[in-house]
Amino acid sequence: VSAAPLSTLGIVGVGLIGGSIALAARKRGLVKRVIGIGRNAKSLDLARSAGIVDETATDIAAVAPADLVIVCTAVDSIADYVCQAASHCRPGTLLTDAGSTKAEIVRAVEARLPPGALFMGSHPLAGSEKTGPEHADADLFEGRLVVLTPTERTDVNALDEICAFWGALGASRTAVSPEEHDRILALTSHLPHLVASALAGSLPAEWALFTATGFRDTTRLAGSSPSLWSAIFRANKPAVLDTVERFLTQLQRLRDALAANDIAALESLLTLAKQIRDSLS
Amino acid sequence: VSAAPLSTLGIVGVGLIGGSIALAARKRGLVKRVIGIGRNAKSLDLARSAGIVDETATDIAAVAPADLVIVCTAVDSIADYVCQAASHCRPGTLLTDAGSTKAEIVRAVEARLPPGALFMGSHPLAGSEKTGPEHADADLFEGRLVVLTPTERTDVNALDEICAFWGALGASRTAVSPEEHDRILALTSHLPHLVASALAGSLPAEWALFTATGFRDTTRLAGSSPSLWSAIFRANKPAVLDTVERFLTQLQRLRDALAANDIAALESLLTLAKQIRDSLS
Repeated sequence: VSAAPLSTLGIVGVGLIGGSIALAARKRGLVKRVIGIGRNAKSLDLARSAGIVDETATDIAAVAPADLVIVCTAVDSIADYVCQAASHCRPGTLLTDAGSTKAEIVRAVEARLPPGALFMGSHPLAGSEKTGPEHADADLFEGRLVVLTPTERTDVNALDEICAFWGALGASRTAVSPEEHDRILALTSHLPHLVASALAGSLPAEWALFTATGFRDTTRLAGSSPSLWSAIFRANKPAVLDTVERFLTQLQRLRDALAANDIAALESLLTLAKQIRDSLS
Repeated sequence: VSAAPLSTLGIVGVGLIGGSIALAARKRGLVKRVIGIGRNAKSLDLARSAGIVDETATDIAAVAPADLVIVCTAVDSIADYVCQAASHCRPGTLLTDAGSTKAEIVRAVEARLPPGALFMGSHPLAGSEKTGPEHADADLFEGRLVVLTPTERTDVNALDEICAFWGALGASRTAVSPEEHDRILALTSHLPHLVASALAGSLPAEWALFTATGFRDTTRLAGSSPSLWSAIFRANKPAVLDTVERFLTQLQRLRDALAANDIAALESLLTLAKQIRDSLS
């Protein structure tokens, strides 16, 4: 996969994802310079001294020289930052994001984007419950999937170039509409977070001693940032609520089979779930 | 931790757990001889040729020379095997098990155990979604917890010796009643399995591409053996059904906060869950 050579990459939000994109692009020689933009001067200093970015600024106007801008902030601020960044950049600058929800962001950006700015939404399926540039990893995107969400308004060359950039970081790519993205990710990503939090929230403190790897793995996502995730749930509310119902139906089937002592039905439901799980990797 | 020296260890059910106990005891020089008893001659041959056990038999009478017998079969057959094994052993032989549920097993054994046989229930919180002696690991119990379930009928020396044996394998130990064990483990172990299966069962096959580490970790337990786990759920049915209600209450709180657009309440619930999860390790 070859990406068009870029001179300057602008990263708005230099956390785990933004920092990893910067490191990955530098490691692979895709950019000459990375400008990191953020609100927290201390975190930016850390990112610069760690060699993640070349220059830093708290004013988004500093993104002006970039050929490609990637906004990696919380989902509830992405659309604003994309539009602000675009207003400072040359016409033809590529813009994308790394948000976990897409429809609200993409439609808001498309309604307000200055003429000449080229935007398409992206969602790299990478990351962890950790946050902050100190966890940035130059190989975070190797072998991972980036979901691209072009619309009828997306410039075809912008799609190709942003797609090639993620590919050059080692990621595979697929494209769906922003709405389809949100419907799917509600189940494959947002629901597991909600379920993990409900499970962790069910544990009495005095029983913590009795947890082993099963409980810990199943609740790992509950360690994620509450503010980042409440924003994600809000931004994808109808689809998330739908998937909760879908999950509850499954759980109630298991519960009802057990309550009715229908062990054959219980084992059959567990077997179907195992077949799905075993198919994943 | 020092265990009294044993001459012969009998393992009934040489799978992941039974095989790991055998390997661990041999590696630490705790026993001179390990006899493996099972129903599947091919699996027993594998265990013997892999150096997991010294001798094998499909007839439980072969357990007769053992000083300590550990029954590591599915929970619905443990009580029978303990009583059968005891009927072939010398008076004073120690017997325990490795079952994931305890009350039904311990009470059934205590009602039927031949005079002179010394039994206490054990539950090592170790293992994985894998099964079979080919996954046995001599260090599986290092740093893990073994829950011991003595009752008013448990011989104090038997408690000490079985406790010391698990300690010599590297495990820490705690003791609770069989009923308390089942109430706690319903939540810390059985519920996560049920939730993982419900989540895996919610995934449409065509969306598998869009799963990442979050979905995969949260559903890992759904890869467990359906027959072993339907027997566990059945053996601990009332407590499991109680924990499902407890979990549903938590999930409904999260759902209701989201549905009501009460993002402060949602973030607060996520924060409580994160605090619990972060406390675990």
